[in-house]
Amino acid sequence: MKLLRVGTAGRERPALLDADGILRDLSGLVADIDGELLADEAALDRIRSAADTGELLALDGAGLRIGPPLARIGKIVCIGLNYHDHARETGAEPPAEPVVFLKAPDTVVGPNDTVLVPRGSAKTDWEVELAVVIGRTARYLESAREGLAHVAGYAVAHDVSEREFQIERGGTWDKGKNCETFNPLGPWLVTADEVADPQDLSLRLWVNGELKQDGTTAEQIFPVGEVVRYVSRFMTLYPGDVINTGTPAGVALGRPEPKPFLRAGDVVELEIEGLGRQRQELKDA
Amino acid sequence: MKLLRVGTAGRERPALLDADGILRDLSGLVADIDGELLADEAALDRIRSAADTGELLALDGAGLRIGPPLARIGKIVCIGLNYHDHARETGAEPPAEPVVFLKAPDTVVGPNDTVLVPRGSAKTDWEVELAVVIGRTARYLESAREGLAHVAGYAVAHDVSEREFQIERGGTWDKGKNCETFNPLGPWLVTADEVADPQDLSLRLWVNGELKQDGTTAEQIFPVGEVVRYVSRFMTLYPGDVINTGTPAGVALGRPEPKPFLRAGDVVELEIEGLGRQRQELKDA
Repeated sequence: MKLLRVGTAGRERPALLDADGILRDLSGLVADIDGELLADEAALDRIRSAADTGELLALDGAGLRIGPPLARIGKIVCIGLNYHDHARETGAEPPAEPVVFLKAPDTVVGPNDTVLVPRGSAKTDWEVELAVVIGRTARYLESAREGLAHVAGYAVAHDVSEREFQIERGGTWDKGKNCETFNPLGPWLVTADEVADPQDLSLRLWVNGELKQDGTTAEQIFPVGEVVRYVSRFMTLYPGDVINTGTPAGVALGRPEPKPFLRAGDVVELEIEGLGRQRQELKDA
Repeated sequence: MKLLRVGTAGRERPALLDADGILRDLSGLVADIDGELLADEAALDRIRSAADTGELLALDGAGLRIGPPLARIGKIVCIGLNYHDHARETGAEPPAEPVVFLKAPDTVVGPNDTVLVPRGSAKTDWEVELAVVIGRTARYLESAREGLAHVAGYAVAHDVSEREFQIERGGTWDKGKNCETFNPLGPWLVTADEVADPQDLSLRLWVNGELKQDGTTAEQIFPVGEVVRYVSRFMTLYPGDVINTGTPAGVALGRPEPKPFLRAGDVVELEIEGLGRQRQELKDA
């Protein structure tokens, strides 16, 4: 299923994009799309049944804003340098174990919302990423297979990053990863049963129409199940938590000088095979 | 005012510790103690008035668990190496600007709840910290004075840390800061009007009755108002966000070998002048 949330920011209603591409209202069936729903197999089955019988009201999508497909996100765990090609372009050794950092849930916006270039920023960069949404509490998992079994679904994430704040201002990467609007998410949360192989998805990102990233999750150093297993040894993952699993090559940081960092007026588009497409215009904060 | 939350985990009710040390029920007056309440001056005034008129029902505190004094925390921003004496003991240069990292709100437990030593941990360490609770949205603030004006109150935080996970396992500090139960908070949220000078508070921590940390916030490299101003330039702070402002000297990491890291059975007690006292027993995860 493709679950989403539509409406003005903060007042989104739950919806479904059905097999025929028709937007269907879920607000009579479930309160919202959040960790509680994803942990509730019976509720997900009710949505599935209702979609099959065609009883869900169609929504007119014209002019309707798409919000992030998940409400009340608990935490966003990010994996750094998780693609062989991206590690190469940044001049970093492939890490021996996953590099972990955090983004605050308040950085999340809808897939087509404005992204703000922070004040004083000269190095705002793009990163298309496969986001993994947790559906069951994951704590000290033993295997990558168990890790995969705790995934409720997938979505497109834009892990916007300010490289000077991240790398040149002391301390950890978090300083360049948590500026407001720095985590567009969506358009959909695609349930795990509809993603045949999370290690065989193409990811692409364009800036002002020019293709910048063109990768595949086959290049991930630590695949999704292993990432979930690994993270669960250091922190407990709860339903509604999100893991951004890293970005492939092609970011501004990896280009020759002068690096083409983002500026107000730029338009970024990104997509992952089967998970939909985002489009953001950049403005000054 | 001293605001707190009492009851079983996840089902706490809001309460007040009045000027006579009597526990008073707030559940008829406000839904909970969270960012929404702290941003609502009128609601806070209603609590003040009710406390003054003595109309609030007394609660029998005997046997009552104290929960974290704040619900629905949005994010926890932590400042590393923020005390001159602590920077010296870890062999680090005092940072030129604040070191920032994040803790997930799901690490928060009550002040006297069990703290779990993570599986595979040999270097679980203690850190008594002054926690600052944000009361108004803080975005690109210009001055430390403005920073202080966005603080709703203060609390004791225990920033439990696993040093191997934090420092020796690649990536950022977050990996050693987000294990479950790693952020005891409370007992109270003391409103800012009752803290005459946040830069003149003594902090102490004991392990198994032996005094380990004995510091003062006067040693902070970046004082509270400056920390709020600084962080607000990199991320937006919202009501109900928390900043752990760093720890003074005396952690296990700063001791000679063999460093006395925490083990199951140890008891940690910590207090900050005017903000109350915590006591945790450690158990294996």
